[in-house]
This record gives sequence, C-alpha cells and structure tokens, in this order.
Amino acid sequence: MPTLPTRPAEFHVFDTSLRDGAQQEGLHLSVADKLKIACYLDELGVTFIEGGWPGANPNDTEFFVKAKELGLKRSKLVAFGATRKAGAKASEDALTRALVDADTEYICIVAKSHDEHVHRALRTTLEENLEMITDTVQYLKSQGRHVFVDCEHFFDGYRANPEYAIQVVQTAHDAGAEVVVLCDTNGGMLPSWMGEVVEAAAATGANLGIHCHNDTACAVANTLAAVEAGVMHVQGTFNGYGERTGNADLSALIPNLQLKYGWDILPADQLADLTRVAHAIALVAHQPLLGRQPYVGASSFAHKAGLHASAIKVDENLYQHIDPSLVGNDMRMLISDMAGRANIQIKGEQLGFDLGDRELAARITETVKAREMEGYSYESADASFEMLLRDQLGVLELPFEVHSWRVFTEERDGINISEATVKLTAKGERHMVVGEGNGPVNALDGALRDALKVPFPEVGEFELTDYRVRILDEGHGTDASVRTLIDTSYKEFTWTTVGVGTNVIEASWEALMDSLAYGLITHVL
Amino acid sequence: MPTLPTRPAEFHVFDTSLRDGAQQEGLHLSVADKLKIACYLDELGVTFIEGGWPGANPNDTEFFVKAKELGLKRSKLVAFGATRKAGAKASEDALTRALVDADTEYICIVAKSHDEHVHRALRTTLEENLEMITDTVQYLKSQGRHVFVDCEHFFDGYRANPEYAIQVVQTAHDAGAEVVVLCDTNGGMLPSWMGEVVEAAAATGANLGIHCHNDTACAVANTLAAVEAGVMHVQGTFNGYGERTGNADLSALIPNLQLKYGWDILPADQLADLTRVAHAIALVAHQPLLGRQPYVGASSFAHKAGLHASAIKVDENLYQHIDPSLVGNDMRMLISDMAGRANIQIKGEQLGFDLGDRELAARITETVKAREMEGYSYESADASFEMLLRDQLGVLELPFEVHSWRVFTEERDGINISEATVKLTAKGERHMVVGEGNGPVNALDGALRDALKVPFPEVGEFELTDYRVRILDEGHGTDASVRTLIDTSYKEFTWTTVGVGTNVIEASWEALMDSLAYGLITHVL
Repeated sequence: MPTLPTRPAEFHVFDTSLRDGAQQEGLHLSVADKLKIACYLDELGVTFIEGGWPGANPNDTEFFVKAKELGLKRSKLVAFGATRKAGAKASEDALTRALVDADTEYICIVAKSHDEHVHRALRTTLEENLEMITDTVQYLKSQGRHVFVDCEHFFDGYRANPEYAIQVVQTAHDAGAEVVVLCDTNGGMLPSWMGEVVEAAAATGANLGIHCHNDTACAVANTLAAVEAGVMHVQGTFNGYGERTGNADLSALIPNLQLKYGWDILPADQLADLTRVAHAIALVAHQPLLGRQPYVGASSFAHKAGLHASAIKVDENLYQHIDPSLVGNDMRMLISDMAGRANIQIKGEQLGFDLGDRELAARITETVKAREMEGYSYESADASFEMLLRDQLGVLELPFEVHSWRVFTEERDGINISEATVKLTAKGERHMVVGEGNGPVNALDGALRDALKVPFPEVGEFELTDYRVRILDEGHGTDASVRTLIDTSYKEFTWTTVGVGTNVIEASWEALMDSLAYGLITHVL
Repeated sequence: MPTLPTRPAEFHVFDTSLRDGAQQEGLHLSVADKLKIACYLDELGVTFIEGGWPGANPNDTEFFVKAKELGLKRSKLVAFGATRKAGAKASEDALTRALVDADTEYICIVAKSHDEHVHRALRTTLEENLEMITDTVQYLKSQGRHVFVDCEHFFDGYRANPEYAIQVVQTAHDAGAEVVVLCDTNGGMLPSWMGEVVEAAAATGANLGIHCHNDTACAVANTLAAVEAGVMHVQGTFNGYGERTGNADLSALIPNLQLKYGWDILPADQLADLTRVAHAIALVAHQPLLGRQPYVGASSFAHKAGLHASAIKVDENLYQHIDPSLVGNDMRMLISDMAGRANIQIKGEQLGFDLGDRELAARITETVKAREMEGYSYESADASFEMLLRDQLGVLELPFEVHSWRVFTEERDGINISEATVKLTAKGERHMVVGEGNGPVNALDGALRDALKVPFPEVGEFELTDYRVRILDEGHGTDASVRTLIDTSYKEFTWTTVGVGTNVIEASWEALMDSLAYGLITHVL
C-alpha cells in the first residue's frame, strides 16, 4: 500500500456547480433548477455550495432570496463576487453591496493574481489590485462575513511573475481571508507541476484551496496533487460541469478522497447516495450523464467482454476497483453483440429466468446479436430484453393486439394539429379510439392509452417519464433509421423499452407498445 | 517553468481503440468501421495500432485480412492475443496459431500478473503461468514476430504479491518481450502511487509500457506519472473509449506530451489534424464527441461568460492554455442567455456584420436570451443565429414563402407509409408538391426540396448530413417540447440550423426551412 496523506483538520469540499458549473456550453439553470440542485447537494452533505453572483445576474440575486427558505441542514451557502472596482471604495461599490445583501455567512470573491491580467484586462496597477483585495476583504469582514478569495489565473501568474502571484496570496491572507484559493483558471497544469507551486503559496501562512479545470484531462489529478501538497479546501462541480472542458468533477473527487485516501468527507453513509445525486443533478441540468463517468456512470461498473464475464462468475471483485454499492452504483452485465453466453445467463438469472440450458442460452445470444445489428440496444432497455426473453422462452402472452394505427400532422395558417387513430383488441373486445396531441407521438400515445384504459384501468397510472430519440446512421439526413427509448413508471417501478424503425413515429410506436405490454404483464396481470 | 522529463529515445504511442476501445458500452465497430479508423490513425501517425484479437472473434480475423490492403504508411498494425492455454504448447494452441496467421510484424499478448487471478480465473499454478508466458513469447519470436506483453492487473497484483508481479515482468523480458506493459486493468490507481511501482518493475531491465483506465478520473494523469517514471510505450484509445469508464484518452495524452513536455510524438505538423481525426473517429464509432473533451471538444476553447468575453476582446491568449490551432481546434464565442453584448458583437463581427451600435447589440442580445428561454440553442446553430441577425438588422429576404404543409403516417398490416404535401411560392410562382418518405420528416424534406428544385436547381446538391433530436423537458413523456438540429452541406460549406416545437415534426420543419433558406441566401443567390 502506498503511504496515504493525512487529512487536514479543517478539510472541506466546496461545490461551485451553480456558479462556475453553469458556465458550461449548453447548460441553462433556472432559479428553480438551482434551488433543486442546492437541496441535492445539501442531502449529500458537501460543506459549501456557491450559489452564484448576486447583483451581477438577476437570477442569482433571486436564488439567494429563495434559498433562505430551503432550510439547508448540512451545507452552507456561499455568494460569489469580485474585488471592488479600481479607484472605488468597497463600501460604496454596488456589486460589493449586492454581495452583502445576499445575506450569506460566507462570501467568495475573485481577485486577479496574474500581472498581465491586472494590466490588460483590469487596466489598473499591480498596487491598486492589491489595495482592491485588502479593501474588499476587510469591508466584507466588517459586515460579519467569512471570506474566501479565489486567485484567478494563479498558476499562469506564478509562472509569469512568481513574486506578484505570491504577494496576492499574502495580501488576501493578511486582509483576513479564511481560505485563499489557487485557481488554474485556464486549466493548463499537470499534476507533477502542482506541488512546488502550492508549497510556495503555503509559505505565506494562508489556508489554501484549489480550483482546477480539465483542459489537460487532469482536473481531478491536479486537485489531488494540490491536496497532497497540503490544501484544505477543494473546489469542483458535480459531473464536472464548467466552462470549456469543465471543472474538477466532485463525483469522482469525493470518492477518491473518501475511498482511496480513507478520509471522512461526507457525513456518515452519505457516499452511498453519490450516484443517485449525480444523476438527479444531471436530470435537472438537462445534461445526459456520460455512461463512462467515473464512479457514477451507468457503464462505470458494467462488463461486456465475454472473457471478463466468465471470470466474474467466479468473483466479481476480481474485475472492479471498489465495491460499486459504496457509491450507490451497481455492477451490470451488458447484453450486447459482444456478449458471450455467460453474460446472457447472468442477466437472465438476475431477472429470475433459468437459462442453465446451454443451447437455449446460445440461441437467445444469437437473437440478441441479430437484433442489435438492426439497431436495437438492450444495454439500457431491460424491459424490452425481458420481453424478448419471454418470447424466446415461449412464455410471452401479449395482453392486447393492435390491428392498425394512423396519425397525421398539419400546419395551416401557423396552426399545428396532430390526430391519431388506433384499432386494437383486448380481453376479447375490439376498441377503436381517436386521440389528439401536440405532436404525432403524443397523439398516438394518448389514443393507445385511452383504448387500453377500458380493459385495464391501471394504465391510467402508467407515467411516461422520459423519451429519448437517437438517429442511428449519421450522415443519412432525415432518411436515417431511428432508435427511441422510453422510460415508464408505475407505483415504485420504472422500466425502459426500445423501438427501432426507419422513422421516429414507427420506432416510438414500438417502444410505446412494448412499454405498456411489459407494464401490464409484470405489474398488473 | 517546471523541470520537464526527457523523452526516451524509443518512446512511442500505441493505440488500442479498435481492441480495448471497442469494449465500451454502446460501441459497435464493423470491419468497415475498423478499417476506416485505422486509416485515420495512420494519417495522424500513431506508431502502433492494435487491431483486435484474430481467432477469438471472426470480425477481427477478417479485419487483419483486409487491413493488409490499406497500405498503411506511418503506423504498424498489432494483433492482440493471450498466453497459450495451461498445459498446452504454444506451437499447437489454436489461438496462438491464429495470431501468427494474422501476419502482423508485431503481436501483443496479455498475461496474468496477479496471483489470485492465476489461481481463480485461470485455474492454474503460478509456475505454469510463467511457463505459459515464456513458451508463448518464445514461440511467437521463433515465428519472426516482435512481441509486447500486457501484464493484466499488474498494479493490483503488485499490491497483493509484489514478488510475483515483478517475476511476471522479469519472465516476459527474459523470454524476449520488447516491451512489458504494466496494466491498471481495474483502473483504481492514483498518480502519486505510480512512480514507486514503475521503478520496481524497471529494475528487471525490461522496456516498460503503461495501460490505464479512467475509474478514478485519472487515466491521463496516471499515464503521465508512469511516463515521468520512465516508461517508453503508452497505450490509450481515441476519445477515451473503453470498458467501464474508458481508457487513457490519446486525444488528450498526445497533445499533453507534445505541447506540455515538448516531446516529438506525431510526425511533423500532424498534431494540427488531431481535432479532425478525433471527430472523424467519433463519427465512425457513432459516439457523439463530448463538447467538454479536452483539446478536441467543440467547447474546449469556447467562452460564454460575459466577463471573459470582454477580456478576450483584449487578448484571447489571456483565456486559453494553448493556441487552439495547434491541435486543429478553434476559439469560439458562445451565443447564449448568459452572453453579454461583447459575445454578440464578437460573433457578429466573425460573421461579417457591424454590431458596433451598442443599442442594436443590446436589442439582439435580448432577442437571443428570449429565444433561448423558449428552447432554441444558438451555440451550435450558427446558421440560425445568422438568420436571426439578418432579421434583426432588417436585411433578411426569404427566397420562398410556405403557405401550408401536412403529413400523415400510417401502419396497416405491418406496412408503414408517410406522405407529405407542401404549398409554397418562390420567384413569383406557386408550387404544390406531394412527397413520400420512410417517415414524416423525410417525406416533408422530400416535398420541400422537390418544390424548391424548380426555381433553385442548386437545392438538389444540398445534402442533409446530420439530424439530431433533443427532448427538452425530461419528465414530460411524449408531451415534451423538442429541439432539432440539422446539419446541411453544399460544396465545401456546412451549416447548422435549429428548430423548436411541441412536437418533433414541427421542430424539424422549422430547422429544415431555415437550413434551405440560409443555404440559398448565403451560397446561391
């Protein structure tokens, strides 16, 4: 075992998903979204949550007003701002005042620490920049606030002018900053370059923090290198959101610190909520969570290779670096065209079917491979896999039979209409239903449910919780084939079905039918 | 400047995208896909390309047959296999023979180096495992092959039984392996743990390689730590593809080595092809390339924050860690609801419009923010942004006017039909066209182009190269609003348009119309 570093007594995690994370391309967080995410972070128990820049952005001002009503239990909110304007007084600066008005116990301000940025972006003198830091920190402290200072471009600044960069840290510390955060704003650092610079900054006597970006694919590793050099405050974002390549990913950093170093980071047992919280945040942020994301991704403990699957039958810990349940994730066997019989057998057993018969397992494996060639993907569509399995085992009885369907969509004078007709038989009776909707799939969905609600009233409680569309043949324009995935929930159950077709309506229809049939067979009949 | 390590004379990059990369969930590579990717890697000039496991997988056997006809110029193909079966002879082992039959100059075999894996997964003795390594390496060398040995689970094995793990390295080296590769198969390592273990392995006298996975979000950093400890062979995959959390991402490792260490990795000037090749591989692999991916992602040099945008007007190098053109990427200003006027002005100037008027720029900024609230996203849809800009500047003249459209889709007796009608006026004449298609959007696309081909024959050469659909309100089922993005190309031009609506057809129609109108205005009229 390698020698592990010792946890500084005051060590803590500072989440900036709501502030720096929201700088990510394509990420748009409403006030309601931010409030939800703050609650998730509080459940998990990160020490600090940076909520935004009150005064600079009306959404953020509103967030701090509403956040007071959240009653956060484990986390403390932090308002972000900047040093006052050059030549002004902090006590008279509108933005500094807005920071105080946000009424948080903790405030984090950004200060320039790279001489060229002071000259060219801020257009002031190096001395005035130091004065701005002292004045702003002292004013905020005089208002009873705890103050953190982010040294922007610290590492590039240290390389250009080490004396000045260190002077900025010293000034912030002397003015009363409780933590001085070294920021690799442009993200160009490598882990082996961190230690020496962090140690130079530590000589000022300041408590240090670290803020890294992922431009060299080393945000997490750079953060760990700074931690090993003694910082006691770690900034990052959930799922690594952030400008350009993103920030250090807390959903990887936290388990690295807790499981690899053995440090206490989250309150007792909260680590097992990590995967759930990472996915919940991704859902609110409307960002699909990358399957490959360390610790929390759907693929992070998934095994596809036939070679591995045979060994996993012996002992699953031989092929995983931690027990996935520690972070609330699961080991998964993937059903795919590279899967051997062993994967299909394990998966079948997990679903409660006996696939001990080698020939049967081999036949099902072939069917899966053939369907995946057509574009089906059973890796995520467990319900469709179970339907296929039941079909192959000769135990599938469909609760309804569809005879035909049609749908049309029209725009005339700027008005859009979709109308669908579905004809089906269930429990011996024929139903013919017409449905309207705000689009063709919605109209078909409505008609199908209306038809099934008569024989099966429970269908009224089936809820379509997600609907995803993937174009399969890129480069084929609107002529491409399409895969749709539909998530449905009913009571405490949730399941996913897949449909494939040359058009989005055909593919959606297949996934819809499978979803309703699966729900009826498994949870109603 | 930190002290930089010295490049070992024989240092090289070994790409395993086609072998270990293909283990990723959701990644399916046909033989044709693999051949295309091998050509891209050869253009770029990675030293070795591991093509697959001939004999174990019929696709891979076929790949090696066909790859001979590719005439690769810069890269050497490597066949992957394993040590022979326990108790057999390498010269008589079918899989070992299949490796030789693949007819590559280089072969890489995997060997167990963790004692528990030898006992429990391989079910043989520690001595026999060493014998299997010696016999297989010697046999392959007797067939005139250069041999690399991957030590599977080396780092976990070293922790469990350091003597045996080192004995495996020594045995492979003594048998004649040209490189012995230390594999962090389960991906649990951290960078500061690497050096000591690599140095222990180096004491055998073997040339060492490194193979890392991203389970702690440190695959690139772990690889760099091993490089700094002296390995001369680096394995990875493009875009970080691979089982679970993926392998070390060569599209980040290569520029780190070349730009941060200053080492020669790719042949002269090829680094500027990195972004193009990473995207081309992603296209073949049907894997959307993450915008946030270091160096090559669409967002990697993109700036959204108003604060940064004002500074970038001064000097763009103040806010980027390298010049993006070194890796063939571009600095981008993002148009988004967080954008200030500065972003809109820079973007407008890039498109050739004068937005110096502050009031005008402010008005356009407000319009963009309002449209993004509805679900539009101009960050990726440059053509739609330009249409909006022309509209706001009062210089938009649409080349056609649509009066109405309708489309229906029907399934009866298992047969699917879509039919669309479009009525429009262009160049003073009214056109009414009906189109069929394999789906509603395809039918509308066909009818719209047929109608426009009469007045504008160039429309026949417009090609829809990609079509993406995103559901905006997750949790709303089929009732959600939808954003579609369409890429169109004509001659050397490519542009992207966006449409939003309560259904996929309405949203697609808007993006289609914008795409054709933009193409006609910008490149035809």
